[in-house]
Parts: sequence; C-alpha cells; structure tokens
Amino acid sequence: MNKEAVLHTPSSKYCFALNENTVILRLRIARTDEVDSVSVIYGGKYDFYMKQKRLPLTKAYTDNLFCYYQTELKLDDIRLVYIFEIAHNKEITYYSEDGLTDTFDFKFNYFNAFQLAYINAIDVHREVPWMKRAVFYHIFIDRFFIGDTEKDDEYINLKWGESPGIYSFAGGDLKGITKKLDYLSSLGINVLYLTPVFCSLSNHKYDISDYFKIDRQFGSNEDFKELIDKAHQNGIRIVIDAVFNHCGEDLKQFADVVKNGKSSPYFDWFILNGDNPIKEPLNYECFAYCDHMPKFNTSNLELQKHLLEITSYWMEYGIDGWRLDVSDEVSHNFWRKFREHVKGINKDCVIIGENWHDANPFLLGDQYDSIMNYAFTKACYDFFADNLIDAKGFAERLSGLLMRNSTQVNKMMLNILDSHDTHRFLTLVKGNTDKLICALSVTFMYVGAASIYYGTEIGLEGGHDPDSRRTFDWQKVDEKDQLFKIIKGLASLKENEVLSEGGIKLYSEDGLFVLERFLGQKTLTLRVNNTATDIKCPLTGTEVLSHNFTGTVLKSNGFMIET
Amino acid sequence: MNKEAVLHTPSSKYCFALNENTVILRLRIARTDEVDSVSVIYGGKYDFYMKQKRLPLTKAYTDNLFCYYQTELKLDDIRLVYIFEIAHNKEITYYSEDGLTDTFDFKFNYFNAFQLAYINAIDVHREVPWMKRAVFYHIFIDRFFIGDTEKDDEYINLKWGESPGIYSFAGGDLKGITKKLDYLSSLGINVLYLTPVFCSLSNHKYDISDYFKIDRQFGSNEDFKELIDKAHQNGIRIVIDAVFNHCGEDLKQFADVVKNGKSSPYFDWFILNGDNPIKEPLNYECFAYCDHMPKFNTSNLELQKHLLEITSYWMEYGIDGWRLDVSDEVSHNFWRKFREHVKGINKDCVIIGENWHDANPFLLGDQYDSIMNYAFTKACYDFFADNLIDAKGFAERLSGLLMRNSTQVNKMMLNILDSHDTHRFLTLVKGNTDKLICALSVTFMYVGAASIYYGTEIGLEGGHDPDSRRTFDWQKVDEKDQLFKIIKGLASLKENEVLSEGGIKLYSEDGLFVLERFLGQKTLTLRVNNTATDIKCPLTGTEVLSHNFTGTVLKSNGFMIET
Repeated sequence: MNKEAVLHTPSSKYCFALNENTVILRLRIARTDEVDSVSVIYGGKYDFYMKQKRLPLTKAYTDNLFCYYQTELKLDDIRLVYIFEIAHNKEITYYSEDGLTDTFDFKFNYFNAFQLAYINAIDVHREVPWMKRAVFYHIFIDRFFIGDTEKDDEYINLKWGESPGIYSFAGGDLKGITKKLDYLSSLGINVLYLTPVFCSLSNHKYDISDYFKIDRQFGSNEDFKELIDKAHQNGIRIVIDAVFNHCGEDLKQFADVVKNGKSSPYFDWFILNGDNPIKEPLNYECFAYCDHMPKFNTSNLELQKHLLEITSYWMEYGIDGWRLDVSDEVSHNFWRKFREHVKGINKDCVIIGENWHDANPFLLGDQYDSIMNYAFTKACYDFFADNLIDAKGFAERLSGLLMRNSTQVNKMMLNILDSHDTHRFLTLVKGNTDKLICALSVTFMYVGAASIYYGTEIGLEGGHDPDSRRTFDWQKVDEKDQLFKIIKGLASLKENEVLSEGGIKLYSEDGLFVLERFLGQKTLTLRVNNTATDIKCPLTGTEVLSHNFTGTVLKSNGFMIET
Repeated sequence: MNKEAVLHTPSSKYCFALNENTVILRLRIARTDEVDSVSVIYGGKYDFYMKQKRLPLTKAYTDNLFCYYQTELKLDDIRLVYIFEIAHNKEITYYSEDGLTDTFDFKFNYFNAFQLAYINAIDVHREVPWMKRAVFYHIFIDRFFIGDTEKDDEYINLKWGESPGIYSFAGGDLKGITKKLDYLSSLGINVLYLTPVFCSLSNHKYDISDYFKIDRQFGSNEDFKELIDKAHQNGIRIVIDAVFNHCGEDLKQFADVVKNGKSSPYFDWFILNGDNPIKEPLNYECFAYCDHMPKFNTSNLELQKHLLEITSYWMEYGIDGWRLDVSDEVSHNFWRKFREHVKGINKDCVIIGENWHDANPFLLGDQYDSIMNYAFTKACYDFFADNLIDAKGFAERLSGLLMRNSTQVNKMMLNILDSHDTHRFLTLVKGNTDKLICALSVTFMYVGAASIYYGTEIGLEGGHDPDSRRTFDWQKVDEKDQLFKIIKGLASLKENEVLSEGGIKLYSEDGLFVLERFLGQKTLTLRVNNTATDIKCPLTGTEVLSHNFTGTVLKSNGFMIET
C-alpha cells in the first residue's frame, strides 16, 4: 500500500457535519492501491475505549492519483472519535492521528484517535436549499436592455450592437431587466446575478462612490425595488454584487482621507504607506493597479461596521444573495461577520465568493456558501476548447473538484462556462455551437447551480473584456432556435430531484464522457462525445434530452441524457 | 517520485503569514524520495503571468513517512500566487492546484496557481511574545498550600499528606500561592496556571455556580487581586481556567431552567431534549456523563454575550491568559468571538485550549493561540515510559508534531509531561527520577512553553485522578536536590534566545536522541540516553547542563546539553 497517499483530516472537507447528528467522512487512498475494504471504527469520546461501532466506507470518486472513500455517520453521541481500518492484501492497517500502524490501543485513544468532538449547531454549514435547483443568468447591466426610454441618455456613447470599448456606455438599465423578466422566465431562468448597481462613474460600476444609491444610469432605488418584486412574482431571485474589497476614489470617505490625511476619521479605512494618498508614486493599496479604485482595509472594525450597514440596507429590499467581488483579498475576519449578519437577516440568502482558486478556507461554513466555480470553467476549457484532456481526464478532473469541498458546498457551487471577466465560451470553442451545447449539458448536470452569461442563449460571442461585454442582440432571439431550446430543456431538468439531491459518478466509456446522477433507483445519465468522430451509443433507457444523437449514434460534439 | 505523497494547501499550516509581508511555505514529499531540489516560483496575482521570482526550499523536518521542505518569503506584492518546482532524477515536475504536471502554463495561472491572495492584518496570527520563554507551573489549588490560617476550615476533610479521594478537601487556597511566590521564583517559574477559582461545590471547581466570585474556600476576589499583583511584582504571570463548556447545576441560569422549563429566558443556554431538565433518563447534554455539570449551548448568542462579560470581568483583574476547559466541545463561533474580545482588551493575553487531539482547526489565528500539548505528552510516554519507540522514532514523532501547526503556534505550545487529568509522569516511569529528568530536558528544550505540574520538583507521584492530585509535601523541598536544581537550570535556559527564537533539528545518533536548537552561529544541543546502557559521548563544545554525564560518557537515562 502507498502509505504516503493516505489522507484524512478531521474538521475539514474530509470530516464535516451535515446537521447536528450527521457526519460525512472521507478517506483518500492511492488510486493504484486495490484495497479490500475500508471501515471507520467510531464511538463517543468518553467511552470509545470500551464501545466501538463500525461502518464500511465506499469508493465514491476517483481522480488521476487518488480514490476517495466516503460514508455518512448517524450519531447518538455527537462527541465523535474514530479511526480507520484498511484491509489490503489481507493485512489490516489502522489510521489514526499517529498515522498508519499495525495495531491500535483503544486504551489510549483519547490521545491519538481522530475526533470531531462536538457538533455545535452554529458551526454547521447549512445548505441554501434553492441553490441546488438554481439556474443563474448573469447580466452585465449596461449591455442587456434599455428599459427606461425617457431617461437622460446623454451619457450613452455606444450605439447598441457596436463593439464596446473600455469606456463605452450602451444604456442598459434596471427597467430593461424588469421588462425582460417574461423572456427570462420563458428561458427557464430562476436567479439573476447582476453586476454592481450602486453609484459609480464606470460602465461596470466596480468603482463605487455611493453604496446606498442605485446608479442613475441604471435607474432609481425604486426601480431596483420594482425589479426585485416583479422578479419574485415571476419566481426569479436576485443576487447582487458586494464590492467590499475596494471602492471608487470619489467615495466620500476616501475623498476625506485625500483632503485630511492622517487626521481623517477614515484614514485607517484604507491602506496607506504615508500620511496622504499619493498617486505618483502610488502609496496606497488598490484593486489590481487601478489607482482610482482604492482598496479597503477590511481589518478596520469601523469600516466593517459600515459595510454591514450597507449589507442590511440592501437586504431590506429583499435581495436573495450576494456575489462578493475580489473576495479572496478581503479579510476572513470580515467575511465571518458578514456571514453572521447576512444569515441573521435571512438564512436563505446565498453568499457567493469570487475566488478563482481553490477557496476551501473560505467555504468551511463560517464565510461563504459558494464560489463562482472557475476551476470547473478551466476543466471545460481543457476538455472542450483546448483538448488538453480527454474524456477520462475530464471525468477525473471534475471528480477531484468535488473533493475540494463539503457535500453542501458542492450543492451550492456556481458552475459557469464564462463571465464578464473571461472570454465567452463560444468564442473559445471557435464559434462551434455544438461544443457550447455539450459544455452546457455538463454545466447543468454537474452538482451545484448552473449559470449562463447573458446572451449565451443567442450565441453571443466575445473575446476578453471589453469584448465579452457586447450588447445583447434582441433581433436574434428565437425560442425555436436549437441553443435556446437546449438551455430551456436543461433548465427544466434542474427541477429533477435526481439532479438536486442525487449522487454523481463521473467516468469515461467507449471514448465518451459519462456523468451519471442517481437517487435511489432513479438515474439520469449524460453521455458526451467530444471527439472528432461519431460513436455508437444506443439508447438503453428513455431519452430525456439530446443533441446530435440519432438513437444509436452520438455524433461528434453531441450529447444525450437518458433516464 | 511518489506523486501521491506530495502535499501543499494554501491558507493552512503549509502556507501562512508571520506578519503583513512574510509568509512561510511548506511542502511535504515522501521521505524515500531523494529530490534534487525544491523551489517555489512566486509572484503577484496581477502580473504573475509575466513576472516570476524563485526561491529554494530547504528540508526542515523528517518524520516516519515524509520530509517537509520549508522557506520564508518576504513579499513586496502581498497578493501572493505561486507554484512549486521539484527536480527529481533530473526531471522537472510542477505542483499547482492542478496537481503534479510536467509543464505549467503561466498564461492561465489565475485559474490554477496556488494563492494566498492578500494578507489582511486582522487575520495574522500574532505571537504572544512571552510564551516562547514561559515556564509554567500548574497548580491544583486545594492541594498546594494553605495560606489563610484564619478561615472557616470546617469544609476541610483531608489531612495534609494523606491520600485524596474524589470528594476530599485539603484546604489549599490563593493566599497559599501568594505566600509561595518567592519559592516559585527561586525555582525559575514565570507563569502560574491555576485550575478554576470561581464558586463551586467540588474540590476541582470545574462545576461553577457563580462565575463572578472567587470560591470562598480559596479566598475572596480581593485575595485573587492580591495574588495577581504580587505575582506580577515577582515577574510571574497568571493564567486561569475558563470553564465555558459546562457549568454546575446550581448556576442560577440552569436552576431557572429547572424551575421554569421552556418559559425560562435561559432555556436555550442549555441543550435539552424536552421541556424541563430531567436526570432519569437524562435529557440534557452534560460534561462527560456528569448530570450535575450541564453543558452550555455555545451556539446561543445571549449566552455567548454573558460568557464574554465574565471574560472582561476577570481580565480587569489583570490576568495574563486563559486555559479553556473542554475547549474541543465549545463552538468555533464562540471561540472566534472570545479571541477578538480577549485580544481587544490585551493582545498579549494568551489563549490555551484543552484539546487532547490535533487541534489545528482551532489554531489558525482566529481561535486559540495554543493547546496543552498532550501529543507531546504521549510521545514522551511512548519513548520514556513504554519503550514503544526508540530515539529515531521519538525524533520523528516530535518532528511530525511541529508540522501540525504554524511556526507561531509551535512557539506558544504548552508542552507538558502530566496534568491533573493524567497520571504523574514520575509514576509512569515507575519512580525513575533519571527518566523524569531526561523527559524534562526535552520538555524545556523543545519549541514552545514548558510546563511542570506542581510537586514535580519534589518528585511527587500519583496515579490517575484523584491520586494525581496529592497534597504538596513542603517538608521535601530542598533547593540542593538534583531534581530541583535541574528544573531550575532548565528554566533559566528558557531565557536563551536560541531556545526562544531558534530553529530545531531532531534526529538520533549513536543510539542517542538529539535535539539541536540553532540561531545564526549559536547552537544548543541536547543529547539523551534513553537506553539501558551507557553510551560514549564526549563533549565537543561547552557543557551547559547535564545529568548522569561524565564528559565522555552519557549514562543510561542521562542527558547533556552543550553549546
């Protein structure tokens, strides 16, 4: 056995509570080790030396190097202690805090067994129940639709349909979204994620100057309320952008620091190396290298309080979630307070971080619920766009991603193919709509929420920002179009409990990528042909949805879902 | 290379900030892999694709399965992203979030490099600077010394010197400790850890009935203040016990729940399965199985507030630290608030958890500073008392323990051989004072604070509780006694900056256990002979302290420290 491969860590993604008396345990073993059995021997902290229970773990996932065994414990005594027993070539090995040993002396278990100790209700990461059925539609507001035709439109400098530049204003607004709610409903959308809506000078509005006011280009606070209420009437939730890593330089508190330097009460809200903010050479921290977007010092307790006031203010409007901009640079300390504050107002309000990397330290139940799943995005690049991995590699990659976080976090992950910060996926696959459709089928069938970027359904293309933020071409909308219909079909599948509650298996078979979801006796199986040739693949169950599938042959860049 | 053995996790003990611009990185590799070199390639999040720096890691620790490479990064741009480069048999392997790969495309690093993202000051785990030089003396108050000879002593039912039972009261008190401060100073002690001092019916006082009052058997609140002030005058700090997992059943809030059930405002402060607390069958959560010690529901926000009031109240007396009883069962959520509260009052107030197991989830900078290092205790059992491991095994075990936590946590660990909850170490080594002395030499030379349990210096013995809580035999005090002198010598060594600031190497050589501390060109080397035979071991430097050492021979159960 490859002893060095064996891994388990208590109070982590390898051992976490689903609720007050249910714990998931995972154990990692080398993929190449053919293990006879893996069991957990467990009990209560105060009598484990006398009383031990036992439960087998089953192999749940396989990535390129490892197998992950998993089991669910229902506990009477929640002061959990445990060790693992691995049978391999008929030899027994125990795994405890002391590592791998041939024997384990239960008499001394209080020194070296693994433990979870006690499940306190407040520490349990609760699922936001609607997320696992969510179909997000991500809107870059200035480019979606002009709804207010009576507004002062002098700021508009981009003709609808023309290529946007960095400083383009096309005129999209909140009323525009409200007017298109029926359209979005018809597509099967049930959540809107809006890029920032507060006062700002830019088209993207990530440089905010007033956190308590809707930007007048987008409308009024009342327009925002109307959008939320009408969206809710249509069964659509609203998630907005919390830009708490930085602000715009015209935010009054930063302006005060510019004016009064160290004597400003807001001096410590920012991170300066000097007495006054200076741009040349830059002496304060910013977003990226943008000196007009000063970074907040989220270690400051007064600032923290202010940001929580902003949070409450907008939650009163009835929003359903926050997407956290540049969340990886904001203090953990602040996100913990933010979570407790948000969940205290509405426990079902979702918190989605913008962390491009493995964000597990933020996803332990004390900070976010979810992130924009850019690791999923990258796996789709590597498989569909760049052919860096084959069906087997893709299955392994997606399996490995599920082992980055807890079960409940996986169910809340925001799976995306693209965003306002990336190329559009259709452009990366060189305009091949079949490939986009196949990638969408995976996005919707994978564990978590699915998200599409506005215009995906009409085949909108675009390279890097600002090209990825083109205006929506409303002429192109055709509900009979293949792409529209597939997205609508996939969105309606999200209601299926096999997807929202079921397990997942990922593997390759006959050159196809296979994603199998299961719940009791029910299954939904997705097969994707990402090769250049057609592959024989007869239907064995009942077809649910397909593309480029004949009933016996799955064509190049086709998919089929059967039940 | 054993690919499955390679491990690194950002924002963990493998990657953590020492301060706002210094990061420690660790990488784990199989011990059996002879790697040519390990480097980190690192840079800033926003320009890593263009600009990469490089630094080698060095092999710092080896345990039974793994080598741990380590380096310290000084950062200009603290938005850290990085990957590792491992050279092995002249082949290069990269290690990133995508695992081990033959190539790494820096163009896509924002998807798959490792990252720390940003070091926010409030998230940095600050060292409590005095801990690394601390010599703790752990007092079970009822058994130490009777200082108040005028008090009502009717409660005393144990004659000093006789064997204690579970319900024995011997009469030790706070004035007793105050009167012995000179004695403790002469031993070289600089911190006292006192078991609970608040009102309670038991001798141990872990079942508290009034958190705002010193138990009258121990004295008054004024006596407590006097002890703190006089201790401080003697350069001795005071750490007290925070019993926040549970209380005594006569705490007024629990009594109110007994009386009023669900209509009590304190109903949710406890964890009941029913409307009223019932003992038979027990329907509320307790400490262990003790129905007179009901468990607090530390998820309750009102209770949390109350516990923080208790915390503030005693911090005003000037205490220097809290030892947290049964801390592994209290909510993380509460410990986070507790830390912020405590550190807001006194950033140098230490927080030491009672977690017998690997407590890393509590030691990430947001909860405790330290724990009672029972894993160290167990290693000493296995080496000195039970011969389950040899010198090599002991060196590997102690190396592995250092890799459980960050550098700053290691410096604050409370290394103990025994406590009021274990057998006395001298009893476990069957009264062999030489063995105790050797174990003490390791306790004081290892990274962290050293702690001795009252009476260790006079060779007090004792089996399991209540036998481990015998009365201190003041007749036996002899400052010329070997044990007393060795402890005093080791305590004075703790002032040496090589111990407080230096690195550590642990290995075996010629059958001896070797613990080497180093800082620049300075070293302190401890050699311990835990075998049954004498071992040749000539002095090569200058002798600092020794026991059973002739200058050329280290006798069985002897140690020597040279510089």
